[in-house]
Amino acid sequence: MDPNNVSIPPLKDLTIDNITQNVHLINSPCSSPRLKYLLERLVTHLHDYARETRLSTAEWMAAIHFLTATGQISSDVRQEFILLSDILGLSLLVDSIDHPKPASSTEGTVLGPFHTHDAEHVEQGGTVAHDPDGTPLLVTCTVKDTKGHPVDGVSIDVWETDSKGFYDVQYAGRDKPDGRAVLKSDNEGRFWFRGIVPVPYPIPSDGPVGKLLKLLGRHCYRPSHVHFMFGKEGFDPLITALYLRGDPYEASDAVFGVKESLIVELDTVGEKEVKEYGVENGTKWMKYDFVLVSEEETRELRAKEAMKAMEKLGRRMKLVEGLPVPDVD
Amino acid sequence: MDPNNVSIPPLKDLTIDNITQNVHLINSPCSSPRLKYLLERLVTHLHDYARETRLSTAEWMAAIHFLTATGQISSDVRQEFILLSDILGLSLLVDSIDHPKPASSTEGTVLGPFHTHDAEHVEQGGTVAHDPDGTPLLVTCTVKDTKGHPVDGVSIDVWETDSKGFYDVQYAGRDKPDGRAVLKSDNEGRFWFRGIVPVPYPIPSDGPVGKLLKLLGRHCYRPSHVHFMFGKEGFDPLITALYLRGDPYEASDAVFGVKESLIVELDTVGEKEVKEYGVENGTKWMKYDFVLVSEEETRELRAKEAMKAMEKLGRRMKLVEGLPVPDVD
Repeated sequence: MDPNNVSIPPLKDLTIDNITQNVHLINSPCSSPRLKYLLERLVTHLHDYARETRLSTAEWMAAIHFLTATGQISSDVRQEFILLSDILGLSLLVDSIDHPKPASSTEGTVLGPFHTHDAEHVEQGGTVAHDPDGTPLLVTCTVKDTKGHPVDGVSIDVWETDSKGFYDVQYAGRDKPDGRAVLKSDNEGRFWFRGIVPVPYPIPSDGPVGKLLKLLGRHCYRPSHVHFMFGKEGFDPLITALYLRGDPYEASDAVFGVKESLIVELDTVGEKEVKEYGVENGTKWMKYDFVLVSEEETRELRAKEAMKAMEKLGRRMKLVEGLPVPDVD
Repeated sequence: MDPNNVSIPPLKDLTIDNITQNVHLINSPCSSPRLKYLLERLVTHLHDYARETRLSTAEWMAAIHFLTATGQISSDVRQEFILLSDILGLSLLVDSIDHPKPASSTEGTVLGPFHTHDAEHVEQGGTVAHDPDGTPLLVTCTVKDTKGHPVDGVSIDVWETDSKGFYDVQYAGRDKPDGRAVLKSDNEGRFWFRGIVPVPYPIPSDGPVGKLLKLLGRHCYRPSHVHFMFGKEGFDPLITALYLRGDPYEASDAVFGVKESLIVELDTVGEKEVKEYGVENGTKWMKYDFVLVSEEETRELRAKEAMKAMEKLGRRMKLVEGLPVPDVD
């Protein structure tokens, strides 16, 4: 690049007090208004952070090592940066911002680092978890829209740990998915499957995130839950989970995912279910009626909340593809 | 850990508006006041960032991938997170905060990602860069304290690229260090060596940081410079560099490192230097008088500036080992 064509002001003699403004200036030719805004806010917060903490070179280097280790322990089957985002409450926050829910709909929660894209499709009533040591669980659900109409043909990813609290991907010898499946809702909006009663489990604690939790004096447990992810054109994707009432970690989830509306009491199947679903007498039973929000409803709600937040910031902003950028016209 | 011993308030039903306070609460048992403060500020800025940008799930996932790739491309000889910190202006900022300089001393600048710990010790007048295509350069310097007294026995790391703009560690076949050395100042505070005239060069642009610069419409060049790092007990470590006057990138350094006081005009040796240093007639000549600050002076200046910044924040803080923590007594 010809340096004579670089149309930025001279960057020299940058100090604690003028560096931020100058980084904004050098980033200002960015052609995407959204990326420019994301960087402008990032640099401002990053620099304010260093100024407010008087960050030392040794602490900065410790952070460099921490982030490097977090990237390096990540793999196809482990995502330590998602875990980091989870334990800092960022994942729950981003889900809440991007997927606002009207009062009548099912709340979302954290995706977590264990969703995969290789789960097999199973038919209604299929077996999702094959662990012989797990306590058998019948899960019967419905999916409706906010007007109460059943939604058919929804693709539903479900995933859970085995009876020891480990996801399939946490086993070195994994040759195929287990404890996870993709289902479809039928024309009455129903789906059901056989899983196992979920158990509480520690998030992976042998990496940088585990070390951080220990330094903070925090435990690394998540309460028992089954993950659900719903997708159908015209609807906002719903990432959520169902938690068990009375779990010892119900009110201290390491990743802040529990919501009262997502806690269920397990039932035990009766005669009717034994016949209808072909399960054994005494099988534990999880029931839930999910409510999806249409894309349009979500888009409107998200835009309304975004503009409200921007007004509070006192910035003149507009929405481009639903996301705020400075309104410079 | 027994969940009954977890003395934090119930964490449930966390929302955009209450998640930040609750993450602070769960982190509050942390036994290190400094780490607790670092986390409290980190979580606040991270969450404010998401709220102010209305960060989308897709953008969050792009950031997760970016950070993971940044960790994974890093190795023993490449540090992409330092590079990221450099191009965001954070490295220069942290150096300025942690190593404040009285007016009479030599300014610091970015360490960069290419310092190594395996450079060989060379004697006075030794050859630091062996590239036969480089333009020979004589470098003669002095090291003094802020009172003007020469400082002997200072360990000085110097490093620079070859004539093509690459550091030794950027070559796959590197079997030993080149373009880098460790020297010692003599009892008159002098040190001198043979290097090559530095050239401008692009920072590594084949990784995540290079992609980001491209998206931002920024070039990836650094102006010609030689790195210097000074260490001696009783003195604050000085990380700095000398830049060449008139370099095409003098005022648009990709990592914000240039300071007017660190720009030098190259001279050409005369009869005297040819004899004194045993170099060839016409050799280019770089001269500089470095001034180190004592640890005590630095500690005092850093503390004074930290407390001034804390007052501006309106927080009641105290310094522990020179770094601010909330004053809760």
